[in-house]
Amino acid sequence: MEAQLTCFIGFENEFEESKAVLFGAPFDGTTSFKPGARFAPNAMREDSWAIESYSPYLDKDLNDLKLFDYGNLELPFGDKKNALRMIQEMTQSIIDAGKIPIMIGGEHLVSLAPVKALSKKYEDLNVIHFDAHTDLREDYLGEALSHATVIRRIYDQLGDGKVNQFCIRSGLKEEFEWAKKHTHLEKFTYNTLESCVRRLKDKPVYITIDLDVFDPSVFPGTGTPEPGGINFHHMLEIISFLGRLENVVGLDIVELSPKYDASGVSTAVACKTLRELVLATIK
Amino acid sequence: MEAQLTCFIGFENEFEESKAVLFGAPFDGTTSFKPGARFAPNAMREDSWAIESYSPYLDKDLNDLKLFDYGNLELPFGDKKNALRMIQEMTQSIIDAGKIPIMIGGEHLVSLAPVKALSKKYEDLNVIHFDAHTDLREDYLGEALSHATVIRRIYDQLGDGKVNQFCIRSGLKEEFEWAKKHTHLEKFTYNTLESCVRRLKDKPVYITIDLDVFDPSVFPGTGTPEPGGINFHHMLEIISFLGRLENVVGLDIVELSPKYDASGVSTAVACKTLRELVLATIK
Amino acid sequence: MEAQLTCFIGFENEFEESKAVLFGAPFDGTTSFKPGARFAPNAMREDSWAIESYSPYLDKDLNDLKLFDYGNLELPFGDKKNALRMIQEMTQSIIDAGKIPIMIGGEHLVSLAPVKALSKKYEDLNVIHFDAHTDLREDYLGEALSHATVIRRIYDQLGDGKVNQFCIRSGLKEEFEWAKKHTHLEKFTYNTLESCVRRLKDKPVYITIDLDVFDPSVFPGTGTPEPGGINFHHMLEIISFLGRLENVVGLDIVELSPKYDASGVSTAVACKTLRELVLATIK
Amino acid sequence: MEAQLTCFIGFENEFEESKAVLFGAPFDGTTSFKPGARFAPNAMREDSWAIESYSPYLDKDLNDLKLFDYGNLELPFGDKKNALRMIQEMTQSIIDAGKIPIMIGGEHLVSLAPVKALSKKYEDLNVIHFDAHTDLREDYLGEALSHATVIRRIYDQLGDGKVNQFCIRSGLKEEFEWAKKHTHLEKFTYNTLESCVRRLKDKPVYITIDLDVFDPSVFPGTGTPEPGGINFHHMLEIISFLGRLENVVGLDIVELSPKYDASGVSTAVACKTLRELVLATIK
Amino acid sequence: MEAQLTCFIGFENEFEESKAVLFGAPFDGTTSFKPGARFAPNAMREDSWAIESYSPYLDKDLNDLKLFDYGNLELPFGDKKNALRMIQEMTQSIIDAGKIPIMIGGEHLVSLAPVKALSKKYEDLNVIHFDAHTDLREDYLGEALSHATVIRRIYDQLGDGKVNQFCIRSGLKEEFEWAKKHTHLEKFTYNTLESCVRRLKDKPVYITIDLDVFDPSVFPGTGTPEPGGINFHHMLEIISFLGRLENVVGLDIVELSPKYDASGVSTAVACKTLRELVLATIK
Amino acid sequence: MEAQLTCFIGFENEFEESKAVLFGAPFDGTTSFKPGARFAPNAMREDSWAIESYSPYLDKDLNDLKLFDYGNLELPFGDKKNALRMIQEMTQSIIDAGKIPIMIGGEHLVSLAPVKALSKKYEDLNVIHFDAHTDLREDYLGEALSHATVIRRIYDQLGDGKVNQFCIRSGLKEEFEWAKKHTHLEKFTYNTLESCVRRLKDKPVYITIDLDVFDPSVFPGTGTPEPGGINFHHMLEIISFLGRLENVVGLDIVELSPKYDASGVSTAVACKTLRELVLATIK
Repeated sequence: MEAQLTCFIGFENEFEESKAVLFGAPFDGTTSFKPGARFAPNAMREDSWAIESYSPYLDKDLNDLKLFDYGNLELPFGDKKNALRMIQEMTQSIIDAGKIPIMIGGEHLVSLAPVKALSKKYEDLNVIHFDAHTDLREDYLGEALSHATVIRRIYDQLGDGKVNQFCIRSGLKEEFEWAKKHTHLEKFTYNTLESCVRRLKDKPVYITIDLDVFDPSVFPGTGTPEPGGINFHHMLEIISFLGRLENVVGLDIVELSPKYDASGVSTAVACKTLRELVLATIK
Repeated sequence: MEAQLTCFIGFENEFEESKAVLFGAPFDGTTSFKPGARFAPNAMREDSWAIESYSPYLDKDLNDLKLFDYGNLELPFGDKKNALRMIQEMTQSIIDAGKIPIMIGGEHLVSLAPVKALSKKYEDLNVIHFDAHTDLREDYLGEALSHATVIRRIYDQLGDGKVNQFCIRSGLKEEFEWAKKHTHLEKFTYNTLESCVRRLKDKPVYITIDLDVFDPSVFPGTGTPEPGGINFHHMLEIISFLGRLENVVGLDIVELSPKYDASGVSTAVACKTLRELVLATIK
Repeated sequence: MEAQLTCFIGFENEFEESKAVLFGAPFDGTTSFKPGARFAPNAMREDSWAIESYSPYLDKDLNDLKLFDYGNLELPFGDKKNALRMIQEMTQSIIDAGKIPIMIGGEHLVSLAPVKALSKKYEDLNVIHFDAHTDLREDYLGEALSHATVIRRIYDQLGDGKVNQFCIRSGLKEEFEWAKKHTHLEKFTYNTLESCVRRLKDKPVYITIDLDVFDPSVFPGTGTPEPGGINFHHMLEIISFLGRLENVVGLDIVELSPKYDASGVSTAVACKTLRELVLATIK
Repeated sequence: MEAQLTCFIGFENEFEESKAVLFGAPFDGTTSFKPGARFAPNAMREDSWAIESYSPYLDKDLNDLKLFDYGNLELPFGDKKNALRMIQEMTQSIIDAGKIPIMIGGEHLVSLAPVKALSKKYEDLNVIHFDAHTDLREDYLGEALSHATVIRRIYDQLGDGKVNQFCIRSGLKEEFEWAKKHTHLEKFTYNTLESCVRRLKDKPVYITIDLDVFDPSVFPGTGTPEPGGINFHHMLEIISFLGRLENVVGLDIVELSPKYDASGVSTAVACKTLRELVLATIK
Repeated sequence: MEAQLTCFIGFENEFEESKAVLFGAPFDGTTSFKPGARFAPNAMREDSWAIESYSPYLDKDLNDLKLFDYGNLELPFGDKKNALRMIQEMTQSIIDAGKIPIMIGGEHLVSLAPVKALSKKYEDLNVIHFDAHTDLREDYLGEALSHATVIRRIYDQLGDGKVNQFCIRSGLKEEFEWAKKHTHLEKFTYNTLESCVRRLKDKPVYITIDLDVFDPSVFPGTGTPEPGGINFHHMLEIISFLGRLENVVGLDIVELSPKYDASGVSTAVACKTLRELVLATIK
Repeated sequence: MEAQLTCFIGFENEFEESKAVLFGAPFDGTTSFKPGARFAPNAMREDSWAIESYSPYLDKDLNDLKLFDYGNLELPFGDKKNALRMIQEMTQSIIDAGKIPIMIGGEHLVSLAPVKALSKKYEDLNVIHFDAHTDLREDYLGEALSHATVIRRIYDQLGDGKVNQFCIRSGLKEEFEWAKKHTHLEKFTYNTLESCVRRLKDKPVYITIDLDVFDPSVFPGTGTPEPGGINFHHMLEIISFLGRLENVVGLDIVELSPKYDASGVSTAVACKTLRELVLATIK
């Protein structure tokens, strides 16, 4: 009997035997422009079967790893606090089982939850962050918890010098000023990524990729497209740097909004990015 | 100099001289399936110019009324309480100026705010409600304020016997049971609308139309399409009944999600419904 | 060798042997809302192959008629006079060869050209017109030639009592008033069509169908969707009445704008309407 | 831990305890116009969560039945014989476990497989078939196995008088002629359904619904839209008749092609049709 | 009271106090392939709120400039002469008030009007033109006024040596030959832009950007996509050169056709290009 | 009389006088992810009229060549063997008339047929292949004839060393291993194309371009988008190399699936690629 519900390609092992565990966090309740990131996890599961499990870039295969796909959390729209609590509990249970959490968002706010859970276990947790936007506001229209404040909230958890931001090309002037004192923020490019990776080589690192770091030509399916981003070859280079990290303790990929790209290209880019990222960093 | 920012057709008078005042409440933060109703007010303004201001059904013209279009409120996504407060203040200021508020949503939750403001002025306020869904849950995933609870919250304001619901075709069994005791709810059809209108003829009435009352074939551009609804000819008949009301003190039209209907048909239906409703009830 | 360029299904005979000749007039230069009718003829040719040539309604088959498809005219956008001249010449040459012209628009303005050509040959030419809009303006934004004036221009050719309009549901008050004196105009419905057909039974008749006569739920792919129209079963009844005419000397079908309906449904409706209309009236 | 892979709403029981078992047969390899039905099962699973499990029409709830969702078969495109063999084996295993198979296609050809499996168990198997198309060709472009021949192949299994077809509105003249002798075929409507159901009341019946039986205004998301079909209220009436059958031994719903209807309306119609059909016939 | 009709972000000052004045010219009546540029100004206004008013590239903010948004002209479709006259009058009134006109098209033909108005005031007016197409035909299908002839008509106003064209990659052989004698035309690239800007440093310059200068991967939402164009990083470099001009007397951005790019990416690119261009050249 | 059925721009000569003959092979029956390549030939014909026949890159014009467009073959879906046989016969008849076949697919499997026909005439036939995928499987889900096996089947015809593959970025590990022994396969790039062309300069060469060789940002309209491909400038460079070949005996361009890219950009890229390829290689 071979019928099965649709999981992400290669994530076909059992929970117990797996090294890393994938789950979807389909929440986009604070999106200020075009919502829809909630549809990302299932879109990626379905379309992942159109790519191969084998990477000719890395000469590795997802089927050679032990990986499990939990499916999606059912999260309450309009209640960001409860949604974050549920995501944090899920992450905690994966960590408690000694496995690495891999999350598909959802909007960027969801990243706060696994960072909270991981920072309890890893005192020295560092975050590497790719994005078009600073996400460093103290609040957004009066809200402390928002897709536009998430990295500031992550900073609140981790403190100065633990957040590393690359390819940022949009934000308030105040955010860029603030970042000069509290995070490592590289505008537009990722020239300093190599040295950052060297520095964090054996430290616990959480990787969060807001997919709008891609140029909208490469990745139109996102809520707030911001022209001037990177292309897929850049991402392959970024991942080859990230592959040098020896202690990646969690990762996420957020802000795919598949219904805004009927061609399915954005979903394909998200799937291939996740495949490469997993093959490079889960060891 | 004839250039101008785009308002709804016929709503071209000044505030002071106007009988009724239109504003947009572009909030959809609690939408549980497909969000996007926030884009409705501007989509309707733009496409309203493709219909005529004259109705051959009613032999009336919007240009013969005094109508003003305020534009949109800027509402905080992810903060439903503040959003509702701002909408209520806007409605209050329109009522205070002796004018009738006309609101374009947004998701259905926004209807709570004008009802709250109007119920202060009109002790005997009644609501006539068209919808596919009961919207009568006590809470939704733990949330008291939600598109799925809004009519229950309106009931909390107005009490037994003041809420009249038509064409309802989806809900929990519990909601239908509850309605038997507390509201007038007609399943599937609007056969009792004529007698309802006769009963409320000179009473203050607020009308709220969740556009998913239409069959999705007529109105695909909504977040939760529910097959089995009414067609446009039915809506014309409904409006001809509503035109017999002598004291409509406010009205809204909610849940158009224009990006889910690229053909623009849903927006056209919403615009023509609003034109007919205004011509029939604003006297 | 069986490859061939794509014609409308069943229109596969040679010019000389054919009874009726189809051509496309892909012009939409005066469209005031959403242009795109220029893409209709080729969209209909391609998708016509998804319907059958046989009609179970009429128990007739396009393959039993002699029909030829000329292809499309190449018309100058932004030059309505020249475009109309070229269409008129094409129609003239078809008439001169003793054949019946069948035109696919384009916007409604194109209908003026064949009427002009046919009115030279048939002194007593009558027009039967289905549309959502009156199209009776004297001018539109200063323009005498426009999609919104075309039936008025046709009236200028034919005079009082020769234009019969059905299902009209949008226009200026002035147009409806004017029509009372100069055309036969039935608002909303086609109850008087049967008697009209009886009256014109053996007279020369030109039929023009603006496809926005359909309700937008049935036919979303048009530039100015106007809610409240007819459904496909109504069109089948209309065509059964038209089938009683004994001297249809030309016909057209206009205002399909296929790119506004990605589902292809509107194109299917246009194709099946044309199949039925040809089978019923070309004898 | 509450995350889970996405099944159809209400189909959340285990295989062993279930009365009926759902599976997806995502094959569309013989589609002659617009392929894409392969994406139907997962689209329906995801969007089923936007409808309720409770039906106010039938006052029944899917959660009160024991139902299991197997997921999708992985079928070889371009190899219809193997695909049919795999579907037949799946159906056989469900029947062998004493459960009722419920299949989501895929194109209509997939219906042949469960009929083959069921006809081995039920000598007197009858089929009730709703469709826009006859599907009775002996072959299609030389192919004996095709979406356009599937009911003919089913006839080959069951013999004269066992196939009952309703609402048919397209086909070759030859097919309609052939049907007069071998099947019960009602053109356009379902007036004879009630008597058919009375006749088959306690006989084993397989129900197959080609969703293009709906008018394309109701259901645009299908490969071969055919204007002139039924609306959703008609389907509710059909299902109320089918609910009188006492021995429905299997059912399927085919030809949703979700990517051709970006609004999601067609998927909603398919989901609600399946909910009502299951609630009415699985007892 | 904070509701307002939607203007372009940062263009929120009053007319009198403003340095530059924006208006929309929604005309596309001569478009020969896919029309729809008429929808650009409002689409850009709405989506401009998804970008920031602050540019991290230039470290400047639109809110630090005095800018006014007039809204859209109402232009007659099918009457290019009157449309051009109305645009010219609007531009004239802005110039007369001592302000800089900023125009959003519409198709490229609209650029002729402001150039005519400005050339009366500035004897030595120069034009810098970015485009995929030469736009240098003497006439197009017999028409002297067309999107395909607009730069030739601008040349007629300004004479030899005043028109500077960059990134051109499509046209007739004759146009490229003609350009060798009469304009500065650089095929494919903008290597000579820097020297052009140096030469025109203190001269009055009008900038016109046909957005199809972008590669269609960056900017799919245009009527005539022409592969092989520039990316957004190139545009940022172009704007940094244009920022050295000291006397930009007007500018426009044309040929966004938003309905052909449902993802909204093209509109985002247009908005960000306009923000950067205004910040760089309005001083 | 100037109306005509729509052919590819510049392919307006008669068969007898032509040097090269174009035909469409609209087959996609083995597509495993998103079918739809069957719609490519007609989409390309229609949209080809939006590009010029003149190339400013090559300073050549299609109108200076003698080219004929046959139209499309009518191929049986679900019967790959018969489809291939019909394509082969078509190619054979073109070769027999001493002309060069140019084919528009369709999925990649169709390329096998012209190679079979040409390999009979040219003993030393070589193939140059651009693609995202290896297409070298021995079988795919048990099928020997598939889009995923086509280059392996072509290899079966031609033998070791005759197949040259460029830009390949997806496949099974086994395929890459197999290629090391039997074909010339360059991963990701085309650095060795220049030397390949030098080697094959006067040899008979067939060129097959699977358009998914482009990055999906450039070419979203394809069934299996694979991020990381080439851009249009790369393709122009590739074509300039191919232009040095002196004996191109046939060529094809496959896997455009136009309905997955509503913007029409992919079709424009396909058309311009074909124009450049024909101008460079047909001498």
